[in-house]
Amino acid sequence: MIRHTVMFRFDVNAQRADIDAFSNGLTEMAPKIEEIVAFRHGFDLGVNAGNFDYVVTADFASVDGYLAYRDHPIHKEVIARTAHVVSERAAVQFEWDS
Amino acid sequence: MIRHTVMFRFDVNAQRADIDAFSNGLTEMAPKIEEIVAFRHGFDLGVNAGNFDYVVTADFASVDGYLAYRDHPIHKEVIARTAHVVSERAAVQFEWDS
Repeated sequence: MIRHTVMFRFDVNAQRADIDAFSNGLTEMAPKIEEIVAFRHGFDLGVNAGNFDYVVTADFASVDGYLAYRDHPIHKEVIARTAHVVSERAAVQFEWDS
Repeated sequence: MIRHTVMFRFDVNAQRADIDAFSNGLTEMAPKIEEIVAFRHGFDLGVNAGNFDYVVTADFASVDGYLAYRDHPIHKEVIARTAHVVSERAAVQFEWDS
């Protein structure tokens, strides 16, 4: 299985409504992209200092499945609509034995 | 379920053997900590430029389970032994519906 992981920090000036639109946009997007096997995302719980603010972990059957998601028009539309709330991004794609 | 996600960049001067010891240390640690429900980790696949080098995603039944892992002596020993290969770290803990 291929797991895509991406963390975000939100811009200090981002409005709560825009951050909610970012999160809700991901929730609404996930079931529309058939290559996604599992999609988990959420806000940092605030347990540790210095953390990023938000993370997505998404599983795919193959690298091609991940690339189909990365380049999917529905995904790109969510990014275009919500990226203004993001100030920093960190990502890794890795393989795990399922 | 609580998912702990943490990404690492390796120091540019880190030796391959030390990076392997970091990864293998995590593999050997995971089955020894009973609070871990699922533990996936691995090297970035190199699909995208600018990514971090390594990621861990670990699931726990509760925040207390995560904290038991975070503060577990076996986990702390792995960190102490291998942290010299890490130049940058990014983390998020979040809750997802299982």
